[in-house]
Amino acid sequence: MALINENYLKLPGSYLFAEIARRVAKFKEENPAANIIRLGIGDVTRPLPPAIIESMHKAVDEMADEKTFRGYGPEQGYNFLIQKIIDTDYVSRGISLDTDEVFISDGSKSDVGNIQEIFGLDNIVAITDPVYPVYLDTNVMAGRTGVLDQSGRFGKVTYLVCNAENHFKPALPEKRADLIYLCVPNNPTGTTLTRDELKVWVDYAKANQSIILYDAAYEAYIREDNVPHSIYEIEGAKDVAVEFRSFSKNAGFTGTRCALTVVPKTVMGYTTSGEKCALNKLWNRRQTTKFNGVPYIIQKGAEAVYSAAGQQQIKALVDYYMENARIIREGLASAGLEIFGGVNAPYIWLKTPNNMDSWAFFDKLLTDVHIVGTPGSGFGPSGAGYFRLTAFGSKENTLQAIERIKTKLII
Amino acid sequence: MALINENYLKLPGSYLFAEIARRVAKFKEENPAANIIRLGIGDVTRPLPPAIIESMHKAVDEMADEKTFRGYGPEQGYNFLIQKIIDTDYVSRGISLDTDEVFISDGSKSDVGNIQEIFGLDNIVAITDPVYPVYLDTNVMAGRTGVLDQSGRFGKVTYLVCNAENHFKPALPEKRADLIYLCVPNNPTGTTLTRDELKVWVDYAKANQSIILYDAAYEAYIREDNVPHSIYEIEGAKDVAVEFRSFSKNAGFTGTRCALTVVPKTVMGYTTSGEKCALNKLWNRRQTTKFNGVPYIIQKGAEAVYSAAGQQQIKALVDYYMENARIIREGLASAGLEIFGGVNAPYIWLKTPNNMDSWAFFDKLLTDVHIVGTPGSGFGPSGAGYFRLTAFGSKENTLQAIERIKTKLII
Repeated sequence: MALINENYLKLPGSYLFAEIARRVAKFKEENPAANIIRLGIGDVTRPLPPAIIESMHKAVDEMADEKTFRGYGPEQGYNFLIQKIIDTDYVSRGISLDTDEVFISDGSKSDVGNIQEIFGLDNIVAITDPVYPVYLDTNVMAGRTGVLDQSGRFGKVTYLVCNAENHFKPALPEKRADLIYLCVPNNPTGTTLTRDELKVWVDYAKANQSIILYDAAYEAYIREDNVPHSIYEIEGAKDVAVEFRSFSKNAGFTGTRCALTVVPKTVMGYTTSGEKCALNKLWNRRQTTKFNGVPYIIQKGAEAVYSAAGQQQIKALVDYYMENARIIREGLASAGLEIFGGVNAPYIWLKTPNNMDSWAFFDKLLTDVHIVGTPGSGFGPSGAGYFRLTAFGSKENTLQAIERIKTKLII
Repeated sequence: MALINENYLKLPGSYLFAEIARRVAKFKEENPAANIIRLGIGDVTRPLPPAIIESMHKAVDEMADEKTFRGYGPEQGYNFLIQKIIDTDYVSRGISLDTDEVFISDGSKSDVGNIQEIFGLDNIVAITDPVYPVYLDTNVMAGRTGVLDQSGRFGKVTYLVCNAENHFKPALPEKRADLIYLCVPNNPTGTTLTRDELKVWVDYAKANQSIILYDAAYEAYIREDNVPHSIYEIEGAKDVAVEFRSFSKNAGFTGTRCALTVVPKTVMGYTTSGEKCALNKLWNRRQTTKFNGVPYIIQKGAEAVYSAAGQQQIKALVDYYMENARIIREGLASAGLEIFGGVNAPYIWLKTPNNMDSWAFFDKLLTDVHIVGTPGSGFGPSGAGYFRLTAFGSKENTLQAIERIKTKLII
């Protein structure tokens, strides 16, 4: 008899964005004339920059000619892309990496979801609360978390509370934490850690032989000098941290699919008998066994991000969204809402007025002003009473949304 | 302390194709003038057909325009592609499927590697021997197999021996088998099962509440009428089988990356207490949580496979490779070698002369006639004494390779 993985049954019913889609579809059906503005899901809206388009056209043509056609590439990605990533994003910040420490993939969601496979089931997982749901859900599915209790928490998970009281800077865990997921700049709160604050975590990981799984998908949005772009800017991080980056948010690749994961060869996990084992070797084995690389055409598109024109064009893209972030921040503040984030990130996190329930505020925003956001409670128990808006809309829509909130939302 | 997944340590040292690459690189270094012909890895060499190229160019242009730009698509794939797959590949054979029973992915390697995640760890896995290594290795990594014994077998795995004696048609397992991997047409042996032979497996699965994981990556190469193109041609299969298909081998997508997995809503797994659970729901949860879909550009390329021009062009592609298969089959036979497969598949499986060891024959073929093939023993213990050649080279190289074997290989 074929048995299922019963850990899946521990997952709560519906994935956050599916539930949002369901409510929006229902509202749209009942209000077909409503002009809904979506500031909910973290999806970009600007077209791909010209340098990337040009490079992908060339790559498509190469695939049409037997002399330049590409079949299977390296599962880890082409060196033409990896070397440019290292030179531009890392060496420029004083971080040296070998090409076999960088793994190209189809997305950070895949990588942050799959990375847990190389770890044992007895590790204690620490996640911030609120959190990007994939870190938690993939550990539930693997069987590391125990079951969901009435407070919405899994029994074996260490939750690192982030709220207005601690300025969304998690305190070190009181209980043991072997695998620590950190997302800086943070999704969903849009907040960050400074170099000094991040160093505390690296030191903790070193002292406890823990691993930091560092999601830097939003690093391109950093504007302040004291916020690190890579965890490897912190001394010692190359012994304890895996870093995830993506082309989704800096270059508009959400529908184009390319990301990367850095696993320095010096990062060690341990066997139960205490022997060291390089995570690089395990991740390489995982990727070569279960993955066949990113399309050549897409990797050529990603390569163009690193041309002079590409760098200028993606900077303009990020600037565009950050102008939206400013509009949202200043607009909401002037409407009397308490807001966080949006300075080094495309996310604005707000306290719901009058301690309103997150989903109630979602419904109110949708019904009153036809704006879709994301309920904070969807990101974890400590997100209750908060709400996320994103800067990924068009400037026109963003301006209109804020105007509606200022003039029509009764709070 | 961060513990690793120690199941990884049970895997034998090096992945088959990595070892081949190592030996070829060494030979090339020592013999820089040698004109090596590669009939080893199952990678295509013909460029992408014009209809696909044209469609991808259009899609790239859509990504450059904010009015047609695509961000995140459905994790399961776009319906424009799914509907064409159903209509062309399934309805035409009398098989009806709903769009939410087909999942588009970045490759069959990913899907056949990931599918085991939705199953419990106590299932007994049955694989043919020899076998495509991914089925086995991913189960080793998950912890379902026990450890490797001296014979090269994992203790808890049910091996279904396929050899010349049983015409490469596996017998039903004597011991229990909950998850049964079948690949038809087969990689590596190039052999097939008829409808009647496959029905025996569907009946077994129904009687034992087992699941058949059916890899049909090579279905486009089927030439004989009594070989099923889909397992769903067999009565009852929609209750017990998951089917994997790929654009890699029919349309040349090995470096372009697109595949699909069919999980009918009627296929059930079981909880330990015996309750039914639809695999479709579990796979959907797996994919939506850990995957973010295939690039829009690539899905548009795959869609073009189903245009009238695309269908003609991929037929020409497959015909080209099958002509190579004929050349290899007939050439090797006339050279006195005992050969199998190659009639409904791009793989020719041969018995090594004088019961030579597979790796010894690999070295001999490389050294004597500068041809790279794949040692049968790399696919499992029962592959020892066999060897795989593929039809994916150019016609010129294939002809030259066979000429070399006929005139220069001393056997």
